[in-house]
Order: sequence, then C-alpha cells, then structure tokens
Amino acid sequence: MDVVHSFSDLRRIRSSLSSPIGLVPTMGFLHEGHLSLVDLARDQNSSVITTIYVNPTQFGPHEDLEAYPRDIPRDLNLLEERGVDLVWIPNNEDMYPPGFQTWVTVDDVTKPLEGNMRPGHFRGVTTIVAKLFIALQPDKAYFGQKDAQQVVVLRRMVKDLNFPIEIVVAPIIREPDGLAMSSRNVYLNTSERQAATVLSKALKTAEEAFADGNHDADQLRGLVSRIITSESLADLQYVSCADMETLDELTGEISSGLLSLAVYFGKTRLIDNILLGV
Amino acid sequence: MDVVHSFSDLRRIRSSLSSPIGLVPTMGFLHEGHLSLVDLARDQNSSVITTIYVNPTQFGPHEDLEAYPRDIPRDLNLLEERGVDLVWIPNNEDMYPPGFQTWVTVDDVTKPLEGNMRPGHFRGVTTIVAKLFIALQPDKAYFGQKDAQQVVVLRRMVKDLNFPIEIVVAPIIREPDGLAMSSRNVYLNTSERQAATVLSKALKTAEEAFADGNHDADQLRGLVSRIITSESLADLQYVSCADMETLDELTGEISSGLLSLAVYFGKTRLIDNILLGV
Repeated sequence: MDVVHSFSDLRRIRSSLSSPIGLVPTMGFLHEGHLSLVDLARDQNSSVITTIYVNPTQFGPHEDLEAYPRDIPRDLNLLEERGVDLVWIPNNEDMYPPGFQTWVTVDDVTKPLEGNMRPGHFRGVTTIVAKLFIALQPDKAYFGQKDAQQVVVLRRMVKDLNFPIEIVVAPIIREPDGLAMSSRNVYLNTSERQAATVLSKALKTAEEAFADGNHDADQLRGLVSRIITSESLADLQYVSCADMETLDELTGEISSGLLSLAVYFGKTRLIDNILLGV
Repeated sequence: MDVVHSFSDLRRIRSSLSSPIGLVPTMGFLHEGHLSLVDLARDQNSSVITTIYVNPTQFGPHEDLEAYPRDIPRDLNLLEERGVDLVWIPNNEDMYPPGFQTWVTVDDVTKPLEGNMRPGHFRGVTTIVAKLFIALQPDKAYFGQKDAQQVVVLRRMVKDLNFPIEIVVAPIIREPDGLAMSSRNVYLNTSERQAATVLSKALKTAEEAFADGNHDADQLRGLVSRIITSESLADLQYVSCADMETLDELTGEISSGLLSLAVYFGKTRLIDNILLGV
C-alpha cells in the first residue's frame, strides 16, 4: 500500500494503478462504516484509493474542525488490512493554495436539512469532492447512506458537471444497539451514548408504521418527533420526510421518501435516516 | 475529422485519440484568431479537439445570445483544413440536463471589468469550461489573449481545482487596420467598423507612451480614455489598468499591467487590451 501526501507523488503513483479504480473519500478516524465502503470498492475494482482529509471548508466557524478526531496510524493499519492500494493524505497547501477562490456549488438540493443548519457545508463538500474527482479520475466513488443529503448533492453534481464517475452508496452500518456509526460518536459521554439509541429507535418505529400502512408524511414526522423529544438528553434540531431526489418536504400520503433527522446530545450533533418505500 | 454531437458518441471517439490532446473551445463563427489557436494546438499535440458551443449561461438576459452569429458548415470546413481530429458540437440537453443546478465559480478575479459589466458571465464561462475539461480531459487548452480576464479567471480555476491541464494563451490576431478579430465585428455597420479602429489606436498610443517612460497608471488610463472619447461613434464603457494576476486596479507608477477597455459602437460591444511591461 502506497501512502502519499504531495500532489506530485500522487500523480506519479496514480498513473501506475490499473483500472477500474474505486475511490473512498474519508475524513479519517475510520469505523466499520468506512471499511464497508472500502470492502465494496475492493470487490468492484482493480485498484482502490482512499483519501484521508479533514476538509476545513466544510466546517462552519463554530463547528468541530479542531476537535475532529484523528488517528492516522490506526487508519493506515486498517486500510492496509483491507487491501487498499493507495492512500492520499493531501496537504492543505495543495488543496487550498494561496489566493484560492474557486468553488463548486449545487443550488436547490443543498438548501434544506443539513444545508439549512450548516451554511457553507455543502459548498465545502462539493468543492473538495470535485477536486478529488479531478485529481484522481476514479471510475467509481463510494459514499455512505448515513450522509443521505450528501449523496443526493453529489449525484446531482456528477450529473451536472458530466463526471464519468459512478456514485456507489452503501447502507448505514450500526452498532449492536442501533446507533449509526460515526466518527463523532466518541464525543458522547456514557449517558448521552445510551440516550443516542433513541434516533434509530424512532426511525425504526416510523419504518414499521409505514410498513403497517401509515403513509402520511406529517404523521410519520410527528411520530419520530414525539419519540425523540421523550428522551430528555436529546435536543431535536429537525425531523424531515422529503422527496428522495429533490429533497422537497413531503405532505400527505407518500409512496416513498427520505426520513431524516438531526439531534444534539450536549454539544454533539448526530444525524440518521431511513428510506421509506424502496 | 470526426464530428460528434451526443455525449455517448463523444466518449467513444475521445478514447481512441492519442495523447497529448489539445483542446480549443469556441463558440463557432471562426476567424483567424480561433484558427491561430488551432494551429498552435496542432503544433503542440498528437490530437486536437475543437468544441463549438454557444453557451447560453454566459450571456446575460439582455445580451446577444439569439443574434450571436453561427455558420457550422463553414466552421467545419475551416477546422478540417487545419487538421483538427475531433469536433464536438454539444447538445443543450447534454450540457444542461433538466434540473441542472451545479456551478463552478471563481470569486475575486471575476468581480471587476467584464465581470462587473456582465453579471453572471464568468459563472457561465467557468462552468462550461470545467464541464469541457472534465468530459474531454485534454492535456492543454488554448484561449486567446483577446479575452484577457477570461484567461486570468481560467488559470485561477485550473490551479484551484487541480485540473492537470495547461492553459496556453495565444496573442490577439488583428485586421490589417488594427481591429482585434471578433465574431461580433460582423454586427458593425460601415461607419462603426471604421470608427472601431480607435480601440487599437488608443492602446497602441498608450503602449508607446509606456515605452517612452510614462509609467503612471492614471495617466495611461486618461490617455486611452481621451482618444476613445474623441471618436463620436464610440461610447466608452470602461478603461482599466490592472494587475495582471489579481486584476486589482493600479494607481501611480507601474512596472507592468493589463490595459483593457470595453466600448460600444451602437449596440455592438467590443473589447480589446494590451499587456504593458512584459
């Protein structure tokens, strides 16, 4: 497994990899969610590239950029075990050279949900992912369903900018008690960690209600909301039932939808979601 | 010479071209300025691709999108004579699919000059050029110095988004009487056409003054401005003496700079420029 930092080293080694190439972009501090993407990429490609980069432009001024957990030696061991060919850990100076002023933005689908709560977040995501796509020219790129809106946004970007790249989405990986895996779970104290299981419980209850014939978007949002707010440590930021492609909020009877939420536990913000009717 | 329209045909033929590949993006209605770019690309590459696309998103709502001159059969004859390998004439539906909402924007260097006079123009330019770069993956791309700010903007975009592409700039090609070649020159009536020579005369006078030791940016702007306004058919929009990289307007003594202007003759808007001190 090659590990490179500089852009010049990257170009040299990238050109020696055999196609098709699968890319797994990460911010590091890897968990089984990331590794499931690596495994999928390994199955579907001749070469696998993973990037580790805590991208500053997708964090807001009051978010956890500095605190974001990092453990590169552990990440590299895990990636080597899983058979990754090339790990790129970009330098900030290569990613954001002096005078940097070029942005890739996606308009409508970045406005609600996470985009509404985290202004500028998706501009940072789409810009860095476009840069990775341009630098690495993979055939497929792997993202987790955990960041559901990110998947919608990146699919739109790929279509609109004509990237010859397939976005592959892998299911959410959960802890045994249902909590969606996230690098940010380490921020939770013991009681918050226990309380955080309410997210998946609420979504699962709504999924069962949908399966039992309750297809009313407002009622499904209400159901989730009541379960979350019954947990005293949970501070609900939003619950949404939205069109899976446009992310427009749905009302009344639905045949499918993205049910998603964001909840604070203390200062830790968690997100989770399920797809209904697919 | 292959001529393709659809994206699927493009991908198939593009993959058969030998590298290095030179790209000459155009809006068609080709003149010797465009053809000088083609000749340069032909000299420097194994394969040459030319695109012909009147990109709607770089025209303002009151600009000349509908009237913009077009003559595809003539363009194709000229390109074949010059040894182009592949001409791509994209479909609007491939370039701007339904629901299109992704933009590439460059911030600071798009604000003054043309960007100030033509809001949204450079967003259209950078988005379509990024799309062409992503679709065609050329090694070099050729642009004319005539659109001086466009060159600055695209160089910034290439650097910021890490495109592995060299921007090659070719000098302005002029008519025998000095008028810079432009597809829009056909809009001029006989008296406007004659009056339009004042642009190159004014710039040449300033160039001579600079060579004679007048390095004061304000005086050079004033000199150009006086010559332009002495022509009754000319309606001066701006004259600028700016830093060649940041496009910040210069004052006082300068060692180098981009002297540029935009002038209306009737409804026809012409631009021209010279580089000082290079």
